Amino acid sequence: MTDCQGDRGNGPMELYEKLTQQGDKVRALKTDKAEKADVDAAVQLLLKLKVDYKQITDGADGEDTVDPWNVCTSNAKGVDYDKLIVRFGSNKVDKDLVDRIEKVSGQKPHRFLRRGIFFSHRDMHQVLDSYEKQKPFYLYTGRGPSSDSMHVGHLIPFIFTKWLQDVFDIPLVVQLTDDEKYLWKDLTVEQCHSFAVENARDIIACGFDVNKTFIFSDLDYMGACPDFYRNVVKVQKHVTFNQVKGIFGFTDSDCIGKISFPAIQAAPSFSNSFPHIFGSRKDIQCLIPCAIDQDPYFRMTRDVAPRIGYPKPALLHSTFFPALQGAQTKMSASDANSSIFLTDSPKQIKNKVNKHAFSGGKDTVEEHRKYGGNADVDVSFMYLTFFLEDDEQLEKIRQDYTSGALLTGELKKLLIETLQPMIAQHQERRKQVTDEIVKQFMTPRPLNFKH
Amino acid sequence: MTDCQGDRGNGPMELYEKLTQQGDKVRALKTDKAEKADVDAAVQLLLKLKVDYKQITDGADGEDTVDPWNVCTSNAKGVDYDKLIVRFGSNKVDKDLVDRIEKVSGQKPHRFLRRGIFFSHRDMHQVLDSYEKQKPFYLYTGRGPSSDSMHVGHLIPFIFTKWLQDVFDIPLVVQLTDDEKYLWKDLTVEQCHSFAVENARDIIACGFDVNKTFIFSDLDYMGACPDFYRNVVKVQKHVTFNQVKGIFGFTDSDCIGKISFPAIQAAPSFSNSFPHIFGSRKDIQCLIPCAIDQDPYFRMTRDVAPRIGYPKPALLHSTFFPALQGAQTKMSASDANSSIFLTDSPKQIKNKVNKHAFSGGKDTVEEHRKYGGNADVDVSFMYLTFFLEDDEQLEKIRQDYTSGALLTGELKKLLIETLQPMIAQHQERRKQVTDEIVKQFMTPRPLNFKH
Repeated sequence: MTDCQGDRGNGPMELYEKLTQQGDKVRALKTDKAEKADVDAAVQLLLKLKVDYKQITDGADGEDTVDPWNVCTSNAKGVDYDKLIVRFGSNKVDKDLVDRIEKVSGQKPHRFLRRGIFFSHRDMHQVLDSYEKQKPFYLYTGRGPSSDSMHVGHLIPFIFTKWLQDVFDIPLVVQLTDDEKYLWKDLTVEQCHSFAVENARDIIACGFDVNKTFIFSDLDYMGACPDFYRNVVKVQKHVTFNQVKGIFGFTDSDCIGKISFPAIQAAPSFSNSFPHIFGSRKDIQCLIPCAIDQDPYFRMTRDVAPRIGYPKPALLHSTFFPALQGAQTKMSASDANSSIFLTDSPKQIKNKVNKHAFSGGKDTVEEHRKYGGNADVDVSFMYLTFFLEDDEQLEKIRQDYTSGALLTGELKKLLIETLQPMIAQHQERRKQVTDEIVKQFMTPRPLNFKH
Repeated sequence: MTDCQGDRGNGPMELYEKLTQQGDKVRALKTDKAEKADVDAAVQLLLKLKVDYKQITDGADGEDTVDPWNVCTSNAKGVDYDKLIVRFGSNKVDKDLVDRIEKVSGQKPHRFLRRGIFFSHRDMHQVLDSYEKQKPFYLYTGRGPSSDSMHVGHLIPFIFTKWLQDVFDIPLVVQLTDDEKYLWKDLTVEQCHSFAVENARDIIACGFDVNKTFIFSDLDYMGACPDFYRNVVKVQKHVTFNQVKGIFGFTDSDCIGKISFPAIQAAPSFSNSFPHIFGSRKDIQCLIPCAIDQDPYFRMTRDVAPRIGYPKPALLHSTFFPALQGAQTKMSASDANSSIFLTDSPKQIKNKVNKHAFSGGKDTVEEHRKYGGNADVDVSFMYLTFFLEDDEQLEKIRQDYTSGALLTGELKKLLIETLQPMIAQHQERRKQVTDEIVKQFMTPRPLNFKH
């Protein structure tokens, strides 16, 4: 994740030239009667360039930027997620779906579902249809280990995935893309691998069941499972450079490792990548809970799946976890002031929230009492939406803040009092995670899985 | 290998356009002060396009085409190998080097060295310098298993590699690129893997020492050795799409698997890709005996090696083994009539040589007696150069044929009598190669290696 300019530093003129060239290219491909997939990919890139160009020239009226490396918007309320659903062609997690998950699982829906934090999905009804017919599915999520310190935003997919594992009683695979981080960052292979192991400790501390969870580093697992590599190569055969260019914006100057990496993030979506868990079965449906910025990888995966004889993975997409400074961008581990780390002390948490958390309150107590605060742009309130379990209490806080009865300092105090024990408990659980336990989770082995 | 048109079907106009575009691109890169590696790669592609254009417009005067997928020339004597040395920037295997190999190894040089069949090298003197100082090296060669039947031309690198293994007493790794064949051909992963195992039988039948030889399928070994994958990723990080485009001619329509594959052929050049043999040592020099068309992979490898802290592999390049129809192209397993297969019966060998082997003889016996034959373009004579051990006998055959004393039918008979027992013996040895023996060779394990 980089700042709002994107990490390719495109000026308007440069973008305009790219746009013109890509237009020429699409026409040439059509004239040459090129393969449909290539034409589609070129058109997709053209549309993306048009959107980028519109955004850069229109300023605040432009669309939000959301891809695996950039998340930003000019709106203090955060990215417009309804628009994103339309743009990405996914489906909204509506009341019907939430009710159905409640019915099928027999459990009260997680607060992330009740509050629209997991807001978008692909094929979730199909997963539930099958589950009702006693056909199990498995969960796949992941993390790119770019440092040894994770922040609270990184917990979102894991907190939700643990809930899904518990209520559906199904296996989970967690991919740590240490190879990806080596390819993208100025880090050594050894550093990335050690970050993967450290991150695994934090993931385990979320409370996953060792009998139902396999956590793997790509650098280890690629060299431990020929079936995984076979699936990587199958995906690599069925995706062209034109396609990854369209989806991820790669250029000719990118290294060949980046260009072929998307296949490695795709492969765990297919059950026979894990023969120790699923044997040779390739028909077990995969459900991927992840932040919406990872969707491009899985749009590609879903495009390839039927062509190599596998079911398409289903998805549940979450919103971003906002930076302390405001919801224009997501929390980033590379900016210490934008993040609350899982290693922060109670004092650090208090100081960061008080000093950096963007407030929707008014400038003076008098004005605040009179006009009330704006919960929609207030980062402390947003964080409470993620972490405060009690719906009534949350609603009361919203009302009191909006009316002016609750001051910014008081709201921040409520957040601090929520985060401090939550993170202290995480640190306590993490201490219990011995090297032996990490090894257990990271060893390919059979899991409890009802065939 | 495809026919002389190349498998990208470029017409002169299309090439001219490509040439113009590439020229623009090089200028743009220079103007933008792009990375040196990218500029170099773009220039390399430009030069390649110029050569291609010159060839297609000049006709017979053009240069030979030699890359991993195309070998052809308009000259019946075969590719001009001296020109190729200049073009590829390698060194000639001259009398000095052959004498030195004899001195260092204490053995009469192999006929492939005496007769200029291994005609080009990179850093061979450095390998011998180190060897004289008791620093051992290891051998790496390979094969792309595109079918279960190998032809006599495929034996050339293996016959020579076995000789090197014997005289220098060093370990050998043999890569079977079944993943490559899956990516390039209309074959399943399972087919390619089974071809790899069948080809391993033929390679073992060449007489390699099981205590000094490790044969591996990429599809197996990538999933069995994390250190191998780490080296693949290291190479992938240090090579851009621009570079592989320049070296291999890949296009935007190629699949991402092809684009990243060169890193997989590069990785066995580094000794720590084989921890079961070399432990964590990354400083052991690699020597690669291969046909000259594989050089692009290793030019790339030698470029990357110092940037990731590894020694550059040394190379010994062989000429091509000509098709029965003539030395304009190399023997190809996909054309049954161009090839003598290792499975052919004595009768098939006899028929193929008599019917298809291009003759340098005259049209009638009378003319032949009067003017003599042309050994330089005679495929039977060329094959004898590869397989007849006795230098004096070979020279006498050449003289007799050139003078007209030896008729084409008699020359063919000599070849048939050389090939029939050679191939029968190969078949006999192959029969002895049990599944158990194949498994032994293909299991990662320590080898006899004097550190």
